[in-house]
Order: sequence, then C-alpha cells, then structure tokens
Amino acid sequence: MIDFQTNPARYHHWKLSFDGRVATLALDVDENGGLHPGYELKLNSYDLGVDIELYDAIQRLRFEHPEIASVIVTSAKERIFCAGANIRMLSQAEHGFKVNFCKFTNETRNAIEDASANSGQVYLTMINGPCAGGGYELALATDYLIMADDGSTSVSLPEVPLLAVLPGTGGLTRLVDKRRVRRDRADFFCTTEEGVRGRRAVEWRLVDEVVARRQLRDAALRKAAAYAARSTRPADAAGVVLRPLARRFDGDRIVYDHLTVELDRARALANLTIQGPREPAPASIQEVTRLGDAFWPLALARELDDAILHLRFNEEAVGIWVFRTLGDGHLVETYDRLLLANLDDWLANEVILYLKRVLKRIDVSARSLFALIEPGSCFSGTLLELALAADRAYMLQGAREGVELPRARLSLSGMNFGALPMSNGLARLACRFLGDDEHLDRLRHKMGETLEAEAAAELGLVGFCPDEIDWDDEVRIALEERAAFSPDALTAMEASLRFAGPETLETKIFARLTAWQNWIFQRANAVGENGALKRYGSGQRPAFDPRRA
Amino acid sequence: MIDFQTNPARYHHWKLSFDGRVATLALDVDENGGLHPGYELKLNSYDLGVDIELYDAIQRLRFEHPEIASVIVTSAKERIFCAGANIRMLSQAEHGFKVNFCKFTNETRNAIEDASANSGQVYLTMINGPCAGGGYELALATDYLIMADDGSTSVSLPEVPLLAVLPGTGGLTRLVDKRRVRRDRADFFCTTEEGVRGRRAVEWRLVDEVVARRQLRDAALRKAAAYAARSTRPADAAGVVLRPLARRFDGDRIVYDHLTVELDRARALANLTIQGPREPAPASIQEVTRLGDAFWPLALARELDDAILHLRFNEEAVGIWVFRTLGDGHLVETYDRLLLANLDDWLANEVILYLKRVLKRIDVSARSLFALIEPGSCFSGTLLELALAADRAYMLQGAREGVELPRARLSLSGMNFGALPMSNGLARLACRFLGDDEHLDRLRHKMGETLEAEAAAELGLVGFCPDEIDWDDEVRIALEERAAFSPDALTAMEASLRFAGPETLETKIFARLTAWQNWIFQRANAVGENGALKRYGSGQRPAFDPRRA
Repeated sequence: MIDFQTNPARYHHWKLSFDGRVATLALDVDENGGLHPGYELKLNSYDLGVDIELYDAIQRLRFEHPEIASVIVTSAKERIFCAGANIRMLSQAEHGFKVNFCKFTNETRNAIEDASANSGQVYLTMINGPCAGGGYELALATDYLIMADDGSTSVSLPEVPLLAVLPGTGGLTRLVDKRRVRRDRADFFCTTEEGVRGRRAVEWRLVDEVVARRQLRDAALRKAAAYAARSTRPADAAGVVLRPLARRFDGDRIVYDHLTVELDRARALANLTIQGPREPAPASIQEVTRLGDAFWPLALARELDDAILHLRFNEEAVGIWVFRTLGDGHLVETYDRLLLANLDDWLANEVILYLKRVLKRIDVSARSLFALIEPGSCFSGTLLELALAADRAYMLQGAREGVELPRARLSLSGMNFGALPMSNGLARLACRFLGDDEHLDRLRHKMGETLEAEAAAELGLVGFCPDEIDWDDEVRIALEERAAFSPDALTAMEASLRFAGPETLETKIFARLTAWQNWIFQRANAVGENGALKRYGSGQRPAFDPRRA
Repeated sequence: MIDFQTNPARYHHWKLSFDGRVATLALDVDENGGLHPGYELKLNSYDLGVDIELYDAIQRLRFEHPEIASVIVTSAKERIFCAGANIRMLSQAEHGFKVNFCKFTNETRNAIEDASANSGQVYLTMINGPCAGGGYELALATDYLIMADDGSTSVSLPEVPLLAVLPGTGGLTRLVDKRRVRRDRADFFCTTEEGVRGRRAVEWRLVDEVVARRQLRDAALRKAAAYAARSTRPADAAGVVLRPLARRFDGDRIVYDHLTVELDRARALANLTIQGPREPAPASIQEVTRLGDAFWPLALARELDDAILHLRFNEEAVGIWVFRTLGDGHLVETYDRLLLANLDDWLANEVILYLKRVLKRIDVSARSLFALIEPGSCFSGTLLELALAADRAYMLQGAREGVELPRARLSLSGMNFGALPMSNGLARLACRFLGDDEHLDRLRHKMGETLEAEAAAELGLVGFCPDEIDWDDEVRIALEERAAFSPDALTAMEASLRFAGPETLETKIFARLTAWQNWIFQRANAVGENGALKRYGSGQRPAFDPRRA
C-alpha cells in the first residue's frame, strides 16, 4: 500500500529549512530510498515517494508556517539540480501507475502555483546544477527561475529525444502558455537533449535570470526577500500544526474522524460517507486558530484528500465512488459563512484554498462519481460541491417509510458561487449552467433556502429524484450498469463531460497534455520491448515504427 | 490509395437536391459501396468513402451554389437516419487509419459549422429515423435539429455502453459546450444505448424541436426558409464550378498546377513547393468570378487541401513536411489586398474561409512541419502563414553564391492579423506572441515591408537564420534529427506546443476529446481480442480489465 501520510521528521529526500520569512526546500534524494525495489534514484531523480514528501512539505509550509512568505526550491547536491522522474521506475511501472503518478505530480505543481498566486507564499527556483525533465518542470511551476551561469548548469526537457515520451508534468504547456516561450524555440528546446544554458536561456524566457555560481545564493535570497516584502502573509501569526490523521483500516473500511470509506469490491464501488459538523462553527476566526487541525472544514479536507489518493493508487479496480453525507446542512452553512466572512484572514484563506484543491482532485479523478442525497444528509454549501462534482446525483423525493431522519434536502451557500472554482476557473454551478447567467442569478437568490427534491430538481441542481418506491432499484441499476462499462471509456467520457467551458493552464495540462501522454504510454515506440523507455540505458537504440498516427 | 477527389455525378451515398434557396443533402448509403472490403454499410452507417462525398458536397455547396442559403441534412432511407460510423470498418482498421479517419470527419463537421457561422449557408438536420453515434454527431454539427416524434426515432450516443469507445467526432464536446446539455443529463444520455426521444430530447436540449412525422418535412422546410430569409448569400450570383484538379502522379512526385510534392522516403520527408502567382491579382472581384477555380488563391487552396489529405492517409511513414515557396511576394500581397478589400463579396469571403480551413488542417496534421525560406521564395501574407504554422522556419541569411534569385525575404499582409485564424480563434501571429499586444502592434506597422533574414529574426518571425556557409548542414541535420525521434512523441509534443492560448470548441475536440479517443484506440478494453470493438456483433460480451487508469 502506498501511504501519502508523512512529516518532515520522516523525510528521506527533502531538507526543509527556515530563515525569517524565507524557507528553503532542498532536494537531496536518497539513492536507495526508492518507494519500490528495482531502481536507484541517481542524480536527484525522483519517484512517487519523493513527490509525496514534496506535497507534504508544501502543505505544511502553508498551514504550519504563516510567517513564510517565500520558498526557494533548490538542490542540496553539489553537481546536480534534478534529473527528473526516474526512468527505470517509469519503465517498470504499469500503465495505471504511470498515469496516476503523473496526475499526482501535476497536482503538486499546481499547488505550488496556487500558493504563489493565492497564499502570498511565492515559490522560486535556484537552479544550481543540471536541471532536466521533471526537474525543470518543477522549476516551471515556480514564479521565478534563477540559474547558475556556468558550463555545466542548463535547463532541458530531453524526454522526446531521449525517452520518446512527453515532458508530462506540465512542461510543454507551461513553456508556451505560462512563460510564453515562442513555439519555434520551444520546439527546438524540447528536441535538444542537452538543453539551453546561460544568456540564451534568459533570452528565450526559459529562466528569468542567470548569475555567476558564487552569487547564486545571494541573488536567490534577494529575490525571495523582495517577494516576502510584498506578501500579505502575517509575520507573527501562530501556525496550525497538521497532526497525524486519525485513520483506521478495518478490513474493507477506512475510518477517519469525519469520513468513512467502505469498499464494496463485488460492485466495484467505494462508499464515502462524510459526517457533517456536530456543532456550529466557532463565533470568530480566532477560535479557529485555537481549534487548529480539528476545525471541521480543515479536518475534512485532509481526510478526503488522503482517502482520494489512497483510492486512486491502492484501489484501481474500484471504479465508482459514491458520496453520501450525514448531518445538518444548517451547521455546514455556519462554517461556510465564517470562512467567507474572514477572507482576509490567512487561515480562513488557506482552508478555502485547500477545500478547493481537494475538490479539484475529485474532478480529475478517473472514477465515476455518484452522489446519493438521502434523508439525514447535509449536502449544503461546501458539501453540495461534492454533488455538483458528481457525474450523477440522485435525490430521494418525499419521505422514506420507517426512517426517522429529516427528508433529503440540500442548500446553496456563498461557497457555491466562486470560492471553490474548478480547474477551468469556473464555479461548478457556472460550469453546470454554462453561460446561463440568469439562472445563476436565480440560484443566488435561493442561497440559504432548504430545498427538497422537487425544488432542487426544478432548479437543475439534481437530475434524478426517485421516490422511495423506485429509489433502491433505480440507484442499484445505475451503479450496476456503470460497473459493467469499459473503465477506459468512462474515464475518457467523464474527462470530457466534466469540463464544459473555458480551458486554463491547469485544464490544458490535465486534458491536452496528459491525454496525449497517456496515449504515448500505450504506444510501442515508448513502452514496447524495443521502445525508448525499455531500451534507455541499455546501450541499444530504440526501434520506432515510423508511421505517424 | 485513398483519393479525396470526387463529384456529385460519382456519389454512391449522398443525394444532393436543390429547391430555390434550400438544398437537401440526403444520406442514402450503398451497403456494398464501402471503401475497403470486409464490411457492409448497413443502416446508413458510414466509412471514409461516405465522408469524402460529404466533404465534397459541402465544398460544392459553398462555391458552386451561392444561391443556397440553407442546407437540410437528412436520410433518404425509410426507417433509419444514420447508425454512425461502421463498426466492422473501425474494428478492422489500423490505429493510424482510425485516428486519421476521426480527424477528417471532425474537420468536415467543423466545416459545416463554418458554413453556418460564416458563409450564410446554415445547416439543419431533419431526423427522420433512429440517429445514433456518428449520425447524431453529424446532426450536432448543424445549427438546428428537428426530429420526428414517433416511437422509433431517437437520438443516441451508444459508443460507451456498446463499443467501449468515445463518441469521437465531437459529440461529447458539442453536447456540453455547444448545446449546453447539463452534464448529468449528458452523462445519462451517453451511457444509455437506446438514447432519448420525443419531448425529453427537447427538454434536455438534445434536439431543438420534435414534430409528428407527417409534419417533419414541412417543419424543416419552414425553418430552412427562415434561415434563408436572413442569409446574406446572393440569390442571383453565378457560382464557381470546381473542376477536377489537374493532378499528376509521377513516381514519388505529385504535380499540381501551383504545388509540387516530392517524396524523399529515405529521409521520411515530403517537400511541398508552392508556386506563387505569376500575375498580379485581377483588378476587381468581378474578374475573380470570371477566373473561377483558376483564381490563384482558390486553386492553391484546393491543391494544398488534396495534397495534405493524400499525405496524411497514403503516406503515413513520411513524418516531415517541408514547405517551400517560389515566386514574388509582392504578387501574393496583391491577392491578399484584393480579398480583404472585398470581404462583403460572397466569393472573396469563401476563398478566405477555405484558405483558413486548409491552414487549420495543417495545424492539426500529425507531421513535423518545416518551412525553408530561401532565395526566390515568396512567404508573404497568406503564404507566410505556412511558415508561421511550421514547427520551425529556417531563413537563409545573406546572398547565396551562384544563385541569381533575390535574397530570401518575407512580408506581412493584412491576412496575417486575424483573417486566417487557427482553430483556437487566434491569428498565428497572436498565438506566437501570446499576450504581447505591443509586439503585434509593431508587426502591424511593418505590413508590406520586405524583410530579409536579419529583420525577420529580430521581429521574431523566424527563429533560425543560417548563412550560406551553414545553411545546408544546419537544415540537413535538423531534418535528420527529426526523422530519428519517436513519431508518437513528436505528434503529441507538436499538438501541445502549437496551440498556446485559449481553447475553443474546435480545439477541445481535437485535443481533449481526440487525444482521449486515441488513447482508447490503444486500449485492450476497446481493441484487444476480447475488447468491445472486436466482440461487437459476435454475441459474446467483451471482457474488461476493471482497473481505472
């Protein structure tokens, strides 16, 4: 089982250090610390284990270190920055793992950009040695790249010439879309194994600055200090410690404090039941700081995050996730109101941004998503986003005999109108009712109203509202049918239907770039016995089918 | 060899008829008229041959029939509209053919939308029987769908449940992006073999209108007449007859009037040399009508179009297309000026739109594109778009000894600033200098100036300007290197680097949807021995690997 829980005391591959308002995150990969046997992590190359630590560090920097306003990413090794994702690891990995590995690394890099853009915690990269492939893609996710100007330090994306795969962690997209590298230069750069160094790297916008090696550290610190000086992050606030999750594996159940995951392997589904808050939100944001990681939205975000990653990597054959909630929607709304009333508080901001990232993870998960809105549930505000993220939501209409719980209901809060955007930049409601501003206005006027099935259906918030006579059969049949379809066709269909509307840097990475990479990961030219990934390092040149498809 | 040249007298599968300002395009597939052996085109299902005729009909409607302002797409068969792409054809096709087939059918459907949006020739669909899969996707490309309200007529996208592939001809994207079908309804619809009929189809926006079968024809004609009444197309203009192309195959050469294609199989490349105009443009648009299909821009567009399709389908192992031009750039500019001065003329408009479509075809071709700007060339205005579409352009700096021709030069015209947009909606220059409006303004001021290599490079119009000492080696090495890379990696890399900036319905279809479909076309769940495509019609259910990737 791959576990995504870690903490700095357990890191093998990263050194995290702090100096006033600036943190340094230095890559120092333990060659023998690979997650799986069969490869050595030479030249600061990485595998999933390295990236799990990176993800953990980024999360902790945001929550535990309000004082940190700028983060320098660099290498702790003398002669190398990072050689990218480990090739032997990739070449021995199964298709599904490769795809999930890329998705997770992409999400982590997006989280870096989210910190720089929305948290006042700006990342920059100090490139102190050769920076290749995924190493450069990591740098591309930061806001400023400063590179040593010497004979050996360069940036490069050698995937196409060397491995017959793409720079699949956002590299191609960030080159032309984020850094606006001219496409003919990008083409040259991506087909040139040795990469580009010195002045030309600046001229082509591949990095922002080159300086003599002996001045590199000072220059990076200067830039970091400049970012920090502009940051809105509080220098003197207390951080929130992210304690180990209370998580219990119990056969086919995983029990968290606010979330239970029950696997139903026979039906290829996971039931995720979320417990709403039992108390109203604290009266003030100060109390939230006191609650720390016990604050319900933050605790839930962490648990969901962990569960999703667990299910993605460790339960590949569980193709359907069924979301349920238990609790009182009005209590959920109190948390939404508290957070939205304190947008200028660093912690409230961080909690909302984290909820956003977790929900985005759900959107791009290759699983069929169902929401079942039943008596006693609390799909309100933030939790309603789960139903809106679902491919289908079923809501029980009317009473259910013998059930004492309140009828199924849902409600809208301010959280549903832009605070938790999808990766295409739209609120899930805005994507659902694409271009229909009039209807969105109508929905805005319904905020806080308790909506039973008929009203929710009339507003287009749910599509399927069987009554108690039909409920069991209708839901059962829908889930059984789903489980019988081709998992691949579903993945691709869902990836298309979920993202109506504009595309952004992020969605271009997940769709255009990733979809092409997944295709390549199936092609003999890359992964076949004579393909480039298999032959890499063997001394034999790969043999390609020359036909263009 | 697959030939894309045809004409109505040779159609096997479509009946084209005219009534005043309305044309009817009726699908009447000849079961035994498949392009390849091994399948029968039952139930008005189609293969590439059917689509080649459709494409031809659409082109002729635009150029030969200025009086036609509305086109009704329907079926000439009693009990079926169209069953979509033929499954046996797909299941026996090689990967590359599948991909190219989908690309061509997508381009044809985009051309339908282009006619409706930009030519005043609006398409609608009269659905007079079951309309499934690619049949419904064809309908989705039209502006108005009117369906018989009876027990047997429905629209459906059964690809996912039946075949484990996507509706890959734009269906998924057009549902949620163009028709704004709510995503949960789209999900239900795309997983329901039998589809949706009657009122629900209207309510869900799957079609625009349902009427009793006996009123169907009248209702469609009424709608067509309403479109026609609003059209700007001239009722009394003379059309331009598209005569058979003068095309000669001569070993590894294809010789057109204004284009020569020379295959260099040893180097996996095709040299496409375009002959610029030998005379200035006619003085008036009236003379253009007299010239008809001999008008240089129109003649060239047709030749390029044919050559590109030929190379895509019949020369898969030729991975690099090298564009050259011969002639006088000032003469090219006279044509650009004439066309742009007559935007309100239907024929000038059609010629520009056709050039746009051909250039778009180049953008999405899975080939490495090089432009060589040499002495005596005429990469000006419209022809400069070829260099801007190229992954790399090389321009010879300075004189070349022993060559009498004028030095390499290029120039900008009004055509480079929006008249010939890419499928992402941007001029190639705007995509190249994404967001840099200042530079685009600077370029606008250079319109009409003759730019030699140094000036062109300084303006960022070309990236590589060797002098005569380096030219031969530098170009040769670049082409040799390119030919040695994985064709798949190049295809995917180019598809990512060429489309910086926004995404549109079209680019979402070519990137998000198509890339996922190409992935599926490699997956055992679809194409393996036990996959759905192979087992379709065998009575055996497919066996799926349940793991989600």
